[in-house]
Amino acid sequence: MNISNVLGHRLKEKPADVKLKSHELLIRGGFIRPVYSGIFSSLMPGLKVLRNIENIIREEMNNVGCQEVEMPLIQPKELWEESGRYSAINDELVRFKDRNEHDMVLAMTHEEAAVALARTEATSYKDYPFGIYQFAKKFRDEARPRGGLIRVREFTMKDAYTFHETQEDLENTYLKYAMAYDRIFARVGIPEVMAIKSDSGMMGGKIAHEYMLLTPDGEDTIITCDSCDYKANREVAISQIKAHNNDTNMLPISEIETPNAKTIEEVANFLNIELNGIIKTVVYKPVNDDPRTIVAMVRGDRSVNESKLSKILLAIPEFADDSAFENSGLVAGFASGYNAHNVRVIIDKELTQEINMVTGANKLNYHLQNFNVVRDLPNAEYYDIIDVQQDDICLKCGGHIKVNRGIEVGNIFQLGDKYTKSMGMTYMNQDAKLCTPIMGCYGIGIGRLMASVVEARHDERGPIWPISITPWKVALIILKPSEELLGKANILEQEFAKHNIELLIDDRKTSAGEKFADIDLLGIPLQIILSEKSLANGGVELKNKYDNTNNIIDFDNVVIDVMQIINSELEKLNTTANNSKGLPREEVTK
Amino acid sequence: MNISNVLGHRLKEKPADVKLKSHELLIRGGFIRPVYSGIFSSLMPGLKVLRNIENIIREEMNNVGCQEVEMPLIQPKELWEESGRYSAINDELVRFKDRNEHDMVLAMTHEEAAVALARTEATSYKDYPFGIYQFAKKFRDEARPRGGLIRVREFTMKDAYTFHETQEDLENTYLKYAMAYDRIFARVGIPEVMAIKSDSGMMGGKIAHEYMLLTPDGEDTIITCDSCDYKANREVAISQIKAHNNDTNMLPISEIETPNAKTIEEVANFLNIELNGIIKTVVYKPVNDDPRTIVAMVRGDRSVNESKLSKILLAIPEFADDSAFENSGLVAGFASGYNAHNVRVIIDKELTQEINMVTGANKLNYHLQNFNVVRDLPNAEYYDIIDVQQDDICLKCGGHIKVNRGIEVGNIFQLGDKYTKSMGMTYMNQDAKLCTPIMGCYGIGIGRLMASVVEARHDERGPIWPISITPWKVALIILKPSEELLGKANILEQEFAKHNIELLIDDRKTSAGEKFADIDLLGIPLQIILSEKSLANGGVELKNKYDNTNNIIDFDNVVIDVMQIINSELEKLNTTANNSKGLPREEVTK
Repeated sequence: MNISNVLGHRLKEKPADVKLKSHELLIRGGFIRPVYSGIFSSLMPGLKVLRNIENIIREEMNNVGCQEVEMPLIQPKELWEESGRYSAINDELVRFKDRNEHDMVLAMTHEEAAVALARTEATSYKDYPFGIYQFAKKFRDEARPRGGLIRVREFTMKDAYTFHETQEDLENTYLKYAMAYDRIFARVGIPEVMAIKSDSGMMGGKIAHEYMLLTPDGEDTIITCDSCDYKANREVAISQIKAHNNDTNMLPISEIETPNAKTIEEVANFLNIELNGIIKTVVYKPVNDDPRTIVAMVRGDRSVNESKLSKILLAIPEFADDSAFENSGLVAGFASGYNAHNVRVIIDKELTQEINMVTGANKLNYHLQNFNVVRDLPNAEYYDIIDVQQDDICLKCGGHIKVNRGIEVGNIFQLGDKYTKSMGMTYMNQDAKLCTPIMGCYGIGIGRLMASVVEARHDERGPIWPISITPWKVALIILKPSEELLGKANILEQEFAKHNIELLIDDRKTSAGEKFADIDLLGIPLQIILSEKSLANGGVELKNKYDNTNNIIDFDNVVIDVMQIINSELEKLNTTANNSKGLPREEVTK
Repeated sequence: MNISNVLGHRLKEKPADVKLKSHELLIRGGFIRPVYSGIFSSLMPGLKVLRNIENIIREEMNNVGCQEVEMPLIQPKELWEESGRYSAINDELVRFKDRNEHDMVLAMTHEEAAVALARTEATSYKDYPFGIYQFAKKFRDEARPRGGLIRVREFTMKDAYTFHETQEDLENTYLKYAMAYDRIFARVGIPEVMAIKSDSGMMGGKIAHEYMLLTPDGEDTIITCDSCDYKANREVAISQIKAHNNDTNMLPISEIETPNAKTIEEVANFLNIELNGIIKTVVYKPVNDDPRTIVAMVRGDRSVNESKLSKILLAIPEFADDSAFENSGLVAGFASGYNAHNVRVIIDKELTQEINMVTGANKLNYHLQNFNVVRDLPNAEYYDIIDVQQDDICLKCGGHIKVNRGIEVGNIFQLGDKYTKSMGMTYMNQDAKLCTPIMGCYGIGIGRLMASVVEARHDERGPIWPISITPWKVALIILKPSEELLGKANILEQEFAKHNIELLIDDRKTSAGEKFADIDLLGIPLQIILSEKSLANGGVELKNKYDNTNNIIDFDNVVIDVMQIINSELEKLNTTANNSKGLPREEVTK
């Protein structure tokens, strides 16, 4: 393939309004083009990468006995009413009426369609277990599409659904698929992707894992320990924190005037103390049938983790309005659980070790000094309700907690009978009894995975595609093309073709600089440079982006040498894949 | 792959409300399942066929230098306003508002997206010509989805778009792609698909071809000759017809009372003559700026071809209302061009040879006898405005015209500058002048192609998949599975795996009849039957659905023999593909 035949300008400059490196490089390299907010087209080099990724995923899914199927993007409302999601999901689910005024949706995921497809086919225990997967378009009407392919509205996902008779069988399959996921990420060149047990939602109980690529510009937060293998997402991460002082002697509580000092920062400034010497109070509306206003208290340098709080409240917390403050005698800016009534006080358990703190007095322009939660709020409840922070102490090993950013490149869930039950899927078990099967589901966004590889594998000049998914493995750059050089190029093209390697050839009459820049923007890892000078030096120049080497190679050896690098790079990826550990059984057991 | 692991019941009975054979067999074989009107899921066997078809198309598109890209299904209104199609297309184009109240559409085709993608990239003559293609979902809100995969609403299409500087270049590419299309249809096993020059629409001028598979249940009409290679679609087909009598002597015109005989049939009955002795008159509203009522006259056994008529009128003909009849002195049920005023009389040219006909007198309950258009309607215009019929005379060779039914499995168009001009796509030519490129487009519906292969290649027991696209090439049926038989099966499985052939194995404990029925419903062309009996007879039984043979083969020879059949079947398809003729140049030249 000649580079002049590849449709798509490569751009010297970073496009405006582009923040993520993958977004920048995928645009600049001519891999993708925006069509509209969160909607992209892929040009040929981008599609080659996507197809390579897809084929690796297909192999691994087939290897675990999953069957490829295809389900529609446009679905009738009825399917989503059966599962209850037609009303449960808001604007993300696009609804429209067809020409017959029938309500239709654009599927944003395919649990409903998978159950609808399987329930007529898997009616006997003999049909179980089984798994189906597809590479299918979805549309999710995101409020804020961003980051190029990281958060889009229209996207292709590999989504798989498995069906089981027993929890044990689901867990075994879940382990097998988790291993396949490790192999997939290793084979596409980012084996560092880690499985993190996810927050299983408000009501708890379900097992799920997110596959995270740590990267500075990721939109998710992942907690790790610098000394052990502890890892968790922000929603569930736990840690220990150091007390703000060494006091053991609780002093008598006293009021102090703090005129107009309402925020933690204003109080700290006014009193000339650190944030961690103050207790922050966050007030939420009553939930469920409990009339009490919720008062959450955490140390001043910490924030309330509302995901943790929601699991305590069994409801999504919402900030209190004026009436909630009034009903409980709470004074905004000077609030605490002290001197309040009709409140449920939930205190972060780390505050039990904090002696002689400052907190609100529920009196305009007054705070309390020498406040001690255990002594002064005897009716409070204690839970872990804070976000962990960098350098907290790891509860597992005592090491240092690290707060990382990451991208979720995949996820797996044990769904249980959520969809099969609501949608009335049943089968006849071995005892001729009608039973409801349980399900697992397993997703990977193909475009987001491509972008994630770029986040993890690039330099300032472009992506450095792993050998397994690169649009072309080898580029041939001809400097000042002459008859002789083109003849040599032709020989190389034919020789590589014998090894099923298609060269990306640049024989344009442009500058060497432009050629190098373009090939780097296209992310081609192995670059053969053919010039009068290289021939005079004994052959061709071989640039290897993987180890950043530049060597002159004898012309007659170039095919053998390059094939050796290709095979060794592939071998490395496969070896890593073969050494995948998957998940420990205790992490997948209910 | 074991057949018990293939999700999908196979059905003994024809499902209700299914008319087309492909619809029936694709459902019964467990290839597809309906989700909603015109919307289907594909099970694994169906998807395997679709992927095989897709790969053949991909190879042939790559071979003609077309680049695979991907464009979105969900698009902003603005793209379709640029081309003018947002208002030009009615209910087939689904429109909806996204969460930001922005008007979006579900793309039913991708000309707009292709121009939008290419216009920023192909800005210099150096970038031309080029072609892009994709396998992409589309949604077309058909009024009457029907025939299983033949006419659906959601579907995957291979659509390609080429861009050119000159008409000559477009024509050369068009020829090349037409050859690729012949190769594709040959390779998927239906080389009989024929390219038919299509009606190029009301205003004429553009070249286009439809690829038609002749099949009794097709929804299109295709005209062929039984003696020569004449072929055309109904809209443009021409023929000669025999005069209804041998009269040469025009008798004097006379009125005859025909009480209540209004239709052609009633008149023929009343007068006891054949339909072809009567002239049928069809009255249409005035069109464009011409105030005259349109009176079309054809022989009584013929129908007006409104597509031909529209090209004469330069407008879509609409039946006249009462006022048009009154304005021109036409009497409904007894109308003709005779004794009428303010009319444009358009007479089918074949009527010039018809002597002494019957037609309406424009007088209640009266017709005319011995009517001769040339004598009696001196101001009429003569055109070919009739549908051809079976056994008409071929104008090219004098042979017999045949009227066939067919399915359109693909189409190619020379679009000219319709989209590039309206969407402002330009490039700088060699003389630094801004020019508008011209386009071609080329489509094949993947699901419809699969269904078409079934229409053409099946018997009463199931599809007979061509070797190139069959979900499995070889089935292994084990009758009364014993340890010994399963051991033998295992050997065969491993031996075939060495040749990259995955067997579909049926070792279920069901009856032989059920096994044979299931494998036939799955359309597996080569079936190895392994049983105590076959071993006693010297080996295995090999059923070849291509030539309907059943042979006992020595166990040690079965792999070699089957591989030979596979290779020879593939060779046949490839040879046919290599002998493709493509289109003659005169058919693609403007």
